[in-house]
Amino acid sequence: MRLEPARGVTLLDQTALPHEERWLALRDVAGICEAIRMLRVRGAPLLGLAGAAALAIAASTRGTSNAELEAAADEIIATRPTAVDLATVTRKALAAALAEGEEQRAGVLWAFAGAFAAQRAAEDRAIGEHGAALIAPGSAVLTHCNAGGLATAGIGTALGVVRVAFEQGRLARCYATETRPLLQGARLTMWELTRAGIPATLLPDTAAASLIASGRVAYVVTGADRIAANGDAANKVGTYGLAAVAARHGVPFVIAAPLTTFDPACADGGGIPIEFRAAEEVGGFGDARWAPPGGEAYNPAFDVTPAELIAAFVTERGVLRPPFEASITKALAQR
Amino acid sequence: MRLEPARGVTLLDQTALPHEERWLALRDVAGICEAIRMLRVRGAPLLGLAGAAALAIAASTRGTSNAELEAAADEIIATRPTAVDLATVTRKALAAALAEGEEQRAGVLWAFAGAFAAQRAAEDRAIGEHGAALIAPGSAVLTHCNAGGLATAGIGTALGVVRVAFEQGRLARCYATETRPLLQGARLTMWELTRAGIPATLLPDTAAASLIASGRVAYVVTGADRIAANGDAANKVGTYGLAAVAARHGVPFVIAAPLTTFDPACADGGGIPIEFRAAEEVGGFGDARWAPPGGEAYNPAFDVTPAELIAAFVTERGVLRPPFEASITKALAQR
Repeated sequence: MRLEPARGVTLLDQTALPHEERWLALRDVAGICEAIRMLRVRGAPLLGLAGAAALAIAASTRGTSNAELEAAADEIIATRPTAVDLATVTRKALAAALAEGEEQRAGVLWAFAGAFAAQRAAEDRAIGEHGAALIAPGSAVLTHCNAGGLATAGIGTALGVVRVAFEQGRLARCYATETRPLLQGARLTMWELTRAGIPATLLPDTAAASLIASGRVAYVVTGADRIAANGDAANKVGTYGLAAVAARHGVPFVIAAPLTTFDPACADGGGIPIEFRAAEEVGGFGDARWAPPGGEAYNPAFDVTPAELIAAFVTERGVLRPPFEASITKALAQR
Repeated sequence: MRLEPARGVTLLDQTALPHEERWLALRDVAGICEAIRMLRVRGAPLLGLAGAAALAIAASTRGTSNAELEAAADEIIATRPTAVDLATVTRKALAAALAEGEEQRAGVLWAFAGAFAAQRAAEDRAIGEHGAALIAPGSAVLTHCNAGGLATAGIGTALGVVRVAFEQGRLARCYATETRPLLQGARLTMWELTRAGIPATLLPDTAAASLIASGRVAYVVTGADRIAANGDAANKVGTYGLAAVAARHGVPFVIAAPLTTFDPACADGGGIPIEFRAAEEVGGFGDARWAPPGGEAYNPAFDVTPAELIAAFVTERGVLRPPFEASITKALAQR
């Protein structure tokens, strides 16, 4: 997403990928809200930036009174009610604006969005550097779903590690799962890898265990959506199965995530709420249907990988190792 | 597949499922060869029956000389060169015919096909009965791919167990994975389950580990393509990952397969050749494409589940338990 202070934003329409690289110039609140609602922009950190940018657009186009900004924030947050980062960052931006006089507020909001983007980009880069240092030269990495630049405001978390390892000449290849049912691996990760010139191989989710057993991958690296105090980690559904197989073969399973992903209020994975999604996502994709109509589906968005299967967490402040209770507590105390 | 001696066969076109139940009346060798080549009929046992039936059709429509039957057998086997059962059963039928006078050969071939179908149906039923006895009342089962009546000449192997357990009131529900990349679980298993009135739930392959961890399934039951002397078993890619997760949760992983699937010449899984399939199957399905064009793909058709993860093999002669070297050797000696 490119910020154009006082004017709007330009963002890549992720629903058109990988077939078309369609950039949208959004100049009003309705436009950016539509983009959020229709998943043209997605990923927790990027949605935070989208929320901050949307509020800045509101200040530039609608007005900067308390009532106008509060109404705009409500409208923005309502586009994706369960997206925590969207709400949190939008509310933080609102509070920063309301603390200033009305004439300063538009400038404050654009500065807030710019600083948020810069901070996230710096965090991704730091995660990438710390993670790449773990990768032995000549290794191949397997990743799942999309924890790339398309989900963050930088180079990505798991894909940030992959990108930096490739820049440093350590990475031989990145394997990407298709990631049913929404296929973010096939659609988004493969697009990012190909565009970055990184040797990339796509596989069905079913083939990941075979790939790990074959000895072709040295590390499995994914992002995470929420990490409990004991190190149990929720990520895109399918992650747990990869971690279980990786452990059987002594392949380190590494999670790359900023410290904001750790939730010390969650003691363990049992406390992480798991969102279930629509049955229609299973048995088809887009206009294609391959299952008989009307059947039931089991469609959780996330699963929980137990801490015992995780070799390390790569954060912007460095690598956390087991025992995770202690290393996570220490890292969060320094935040 | 329905045999109509001296006339032909009627078979269900599996490429039209689940959207259409299209039965094809095939009356000549070209027609049944096209059906085999285009995967309208598939599954190792069913391909064996198709080969025997095709040779019977050849005898009824083309002639019964040695030259005519040998040419027909070559033509039939060439439709799927890697399908072992197709070749084995067709050659056995040919040998049975050539042992008789020319006037008897058509009758011999139709009788051979009929006996083969009856034997396979009896084996499936026996596998189903032995397997169902393992299922505690009220249990749910998870299966992978399609080891149902659409792949055999009977009620299926893994789905035979599911069907008999359901008939006996033991089965609460059957969960079926989509089974990327060819989606036989979504297309075929869900169709069979729904048609049989069995409560059925479809899940993305990525959600299987989450499902097992949730405690919803009491058994994982699949078929197999080849089983080594030590019990290592090759089956549709994705099976190994399910077995690895099931083992972590104490959920028995059971393979249902006839004794012909055991290959005592293969000492262990390392000796089982794994077929790799076209890259185009990954990143899309049918006319839908969701990956960027031109990428590489890792697309093995099978994976190997190590014997240590397998709780039992259910065969037509009963249930084989560890240590498998001994139980498999004993079962094959009695065959």
